[in-house]
Amino acid sequence: AQSSVTVFGIVDATIAYGKGTDGASSKTQLTNSGYNSSRLGFRGTEDLGGGLAASFWLEGSLGNDDGTAGQRIPVGNQNGLQAPNDGAGLVFNRRSTVSLSGNWGEVRLGRDYTPTFWNLTIFDPFGTNGVGTTLTLVAPAGGLGVAANALVPVGTRGVIVRASNDIGYFLPANLGGIYGQINYWMGENVQNNAANEKDGSGWGGRIGYGAGPFNVAAAYAQTKYDATPVNGAAGGPSGDFTTWNIGGQWDFGMAKLMGHYSAEKRDASVTSAEAKGKGWLIGALVPVGAGEIRASYSTYKIELVGGAEPEAKQFALGYVHNLSKRTALYTTIARAKNEGGAAFALNGSTAVVNNTSTGFDLGIRHSF
Amino acid sequence: AQSSVTVFGIVDATIAYGKGTDGASSKTQLTNSGYNSSRLGFRGTEDLGGGLAASFWLEGSLGNDDGTAGQRIPVGNQNGLQAPNDGAGLVFNRRSTVSLSGNWGEVRLGRDYTPTFWNLTIFDPFGTNGVGTTLTLVAPAGGLGVAANALVPVGTRGVIVRASNDIGYFLPANLGGIYGQINYWMGENVQNNAANEKDGSGWGGRIGYGAGPFNVAAAYAQTKYDATPVNGAAGGPSGDFTTWNIGGQWDFGMAKLMGHYSAEKRDASVTSAEAKGKGWLIGALVPVGAGEIRASYSTYKIELVGGAEPEAKQFALGYVHNLSKRTALYTTIARAKNEGGAAFALNGSTAVVNNTSTGFDLGIRHSF
Amino acid sequence: AQSSVTVFGIVDATIAYGKGTDGASSKTQLTNSGYNSSRLGFRGTEDLGGGLAASFWLEGSLGNDDGTAGQRIPVGNQNGLQAPNDGAGLVFNRRSTVSLSGNWGEVRLGRDYTPTFWNLTIFDPFGTNGVGTTLTLVAPAGGLGVAANALVPVGTRGVIVRASNDIGYFLPANLGGIYGQINYWMGENVQNNAANEKDGSGWGGRIGYGAGPFNVAAAYAQTKYDATPVNGAAGGPSGDFTTWNIGGQWDFGMAKLMGHYSAEKRDASVTSAEAKGKGWLIGALVPVGAGEIRASYSTYKIELVGGAEPEAKQFALGYVHNLSKRTALYTTIARAKNEGGAAFALNGSTAVVNNTSTGFDLGIRHSF
Repeated sequence: AQSSVTVFGIVDATIAYGKGTDGASSKTQLTNSGYNSSRLGFRGTEDLGGGLAASFWLEGSLGNDDGTAGQRIPVGNQNGLQAPNDGAGLVFNRRSTVSLSGNWGEVRLGRDYTPTFWNLTIFDPFGTNGVGTTLTLVAPAGGLGVAANALVPVGTRGVIVRASNDIGYFLPANLGGIYGQINYWMGENVQNNAANEKDGSGWGGRIGYGAGPFNVAAAYAQTKYDATPVNGAAGGPSGDFTTWNIGGQWDFGMAKLMGHYSAEKRDASVTSAEAKGKGWLIGALVPVGAGEIRASYSTYKIELVGGAEPEAKQFALGYVHNLSKRTALYTTIARAKNEGGAAFALNGSTAVVNNTSTGFDLGIRHSF
Repeated sequence: AQSSVTVFGIVDATIAYGKGTDGASSKTQLTNSGYNSSRLGFRGTEDLGGGLAASFWLEGSLGNDDGTAGQRIPVGNQNGLQAPNDGAGLVFNRRSTVSLSGNWGEVRLGRDYTPTFWNLTIFDPFGTNGVGTTLTLVAPAGGLGVAANALVPVGTRGVIVRASNDIGYFLPANLGGIYGQINYWMGENVQNNAANEKDGSGWGGRIGYGAGPFNVAAAYAQTKYDATPVNGAAGGPSGDFTTWNIGGQWDFGMAKLMGHYSAEKRDASVTSAEAKGKGWLIGALVPVGAGEIRASYSTYKIELVGGAEPEAKQFALGYVHNLSKRTALYTTIARAKNEGGAAFALNGSTAVVNNTSTGFDLGIRHSF
Repeated sequence: AQSSVTVFGIVDATIAYGKGTDGASSKTQLTNSGYNSSRLGFRGTEDLGGGLAASFWLEGSLGNDDGTAGQRIPVGNQNGLQAPNDGAGLVFNRRSTVSLSGNWGEVRLGRDYTPTFWNLTIFDPFGTNGVGTTLTLVAPAGGLGVAANALVPVGTRGVIVRASNDIGYFLPANLGGIYGQINYWMGENVQNNAANEKDGSGWGGRIGYGAGPFNVAAAYAQTKYDATPVNGAAGGPSGDFTTWNIGGQWDFGMAKLMGHYSAEKRDASVTSAEAKGKGWLIGALVPVGAGEIRASYSTYKIELVGGAEPEAKQFALGYVHNLSKRTALYTTIARAKNEGGAAFALNGSTAVVNNTSTGFDLGIRHSF
């Protein structure tokens, strides 16, 4: 019979340097995933005949610098309910799905990416990896260096990128360039009229159009959290989280230009006031022989009740040299500037409020 | 050389709904293993010549709805000594063995199923998976919804289905239909005349006969626990656990009828009185084209000192539609009725004592 | 395309018996890794042309007796910063690297063996596995049965065998028998002039010469720990750790003789005084038909401030019978004698100070 499982992965190791304001502190690490996220996975597809197919995808993260594996997974997407610590062991936190697909599209069940994540990563020259990662991804969860300003409940960071207990429907590939998906993820709470009945439940969708050199897409998602964090013993902000974004790119051949805009809102709750955030990125990929130059400018501003507006701006420049299709050497330098009370810092350094941070990556990516 | 390792597994996703008494509470989840247990494994066999073979089997559970992996494993089978939380990461909790086999049978070392588990799962039309799982499996460990009535120490739930540190001997396949096994599992305590010397040690055996449409087997097992739970900081009942069962089936072609009877006993200990339990199942599998109808009635009664006899009765009906040998769609509905102080509830719902619970599964099973 | 990933491993199960002094206590276990360390791994190499190659190696330990997987990994090699408990789930704690290699040698990034480990394991007839493991490996970390005498911080036991966040360079294979490596491992602390800036950082090297029946090598390594264990909430000794060793072997055909000498030093710190240790091994491997006899004598003495000198001496004798290249049966018996306050005990038994311990292994090793 045909082989029914493919073992695949990426091992990406990075020497990462970060420096906080005025050289008061710095950090050098051997870390991972500076170009592509390190991973180990198992996947396969079975042709069921008549255009129908069943497939599975199990993919976990790797901390290949120290041998650890998975990251914490929010249990049922809920506020504060988490699996054990990072580094616990291989879990299929990146994607864990089973699908049935046909010419009508695909139904996918399990843990998968949120629809809103795609515009941030596809339309970022750095693909949301390494020191050049767009601020529109890292700012909402990190609060630009001030945890209290985070726009998602601390215990649920995964819901920005992925959701568990998800039912997704994807449009088929034959719609003349139109693509799209809709997802519903479950909080899995007991339904007994308690305040946290919907905690961790959410939904989202994405619609796009790609043809020739052109590609554009928009996405929306929201996740419910109980106003009082019943499950959130760990504390952290509560309140429903809403996000939408739009992104696009044009491939001019000598360069691929891209950009995106993203806006987030955290509703008021018993423990924290309403907060909003918005940011954007503009960037380019420029092929150079066997390599590629990457550049981006991204910015994010959080709007707090009372008028404070912490904001960061970041410029990143990088180069990837492909030794083969599977193996590449890369380097990136980034510089972030904080204003209005932000203290965003790069590569594990710590930043003083309203000052700057510089980061540098040098690494190797090998896929299999 | 021949390939020495096979990567195999099952990804089974289920939309599971459960409702407690009179609709006061319900729960809907995307969960896993509604038809077959989700798993990822590695196995292989080496022909050593002369009829001798060496083989290994490493198989772990998957929580593919949220990307988590293994379940808690009792350390050395002992009361209260456990590995970290569920969902920690891939562990080979389902089976982790190395074997040497020949025409004299097989010696198997590691973590494996107890001999008594087989009659419960083979002679259950639902194979001890999903909402239709026989009460004879889930009642002894769960106490029919009242933890204090559980017949096995809470921290050792694995010993009902599997035991670690196990040495097993299996009869060869060429005995004219007779099959059997004997197992000894070690508690691995220091032997120094302390009260818990034998905590977690046990043994069991199974003998059966299968020929043509007929198959019948009986099994027995017991595990020692110290009367005072020295290792059981987590509390829970203590006392030796004994179980035996008998099961059989007849394949009439148009239907396969099956049934089993199971009896358990927990000895008195410092923290709890003696308790007994017994239950049975009758069921059928009916092939229908590419599919199969499954039906069962199971019941379990716990006999507590003082005369209380919590009891549950469950009816389950399901249908499996095979899209291929590897992929199936399935659905099951079950209804459980509690009496005498039982509060057993289906699919994560909560039940009021002496009332009913309804559960429903709809899912897809894909194996590789 | 060529296959890009190899799944490999070893499942080694051992019935291990240990007895402390005068029979007061004993322990029998089904354990693992009595001959070779149980493991599961994924590795591959890509030919990049021009003599250049990229490769990866992900290898985790297996507790195949109970289905658990990885062992604790010190986070960033630092004192007291650890990943969750043993048995948490599959982590690539044995080796987790990505490499670029050419005729100039190999650069390897990730978690890898320290250079000093190799002389202890290669020049030990028991390969640092099972009850016969050389005292030069187990004594420095275990303090010969008295934890306070351990020569490495308790929370960092891994640094003796492996280091995380490691950058290694290996000489190429074409230097006429000369081989060698140099490694630098990072503590990854914030550099802000705090006392623990260098905590967990270290380096080491190894140089050797092998030709025909002859092989000899020397190695050195040191790891910095802050004098005050800032990260060491778990307590345990602190202070920089230094080790060097030399080893060699001569293959006479009818027997392979080998030996090594190892010396360690723990610097004084706020919580503990300086301590030194030294030990040596002499051993032999004698081929006998399809099998091999193994024998060794090893000893280790810890020199504490104040003059106390706990010391243990161990004799081990074993036999391995190869059923094939991949599968072997083996047995080992060892006896250890304690002096000067040592209480080293074999196979999980407990020993009385200055007395003896006996251990016995019987097992099967199957590789794939």
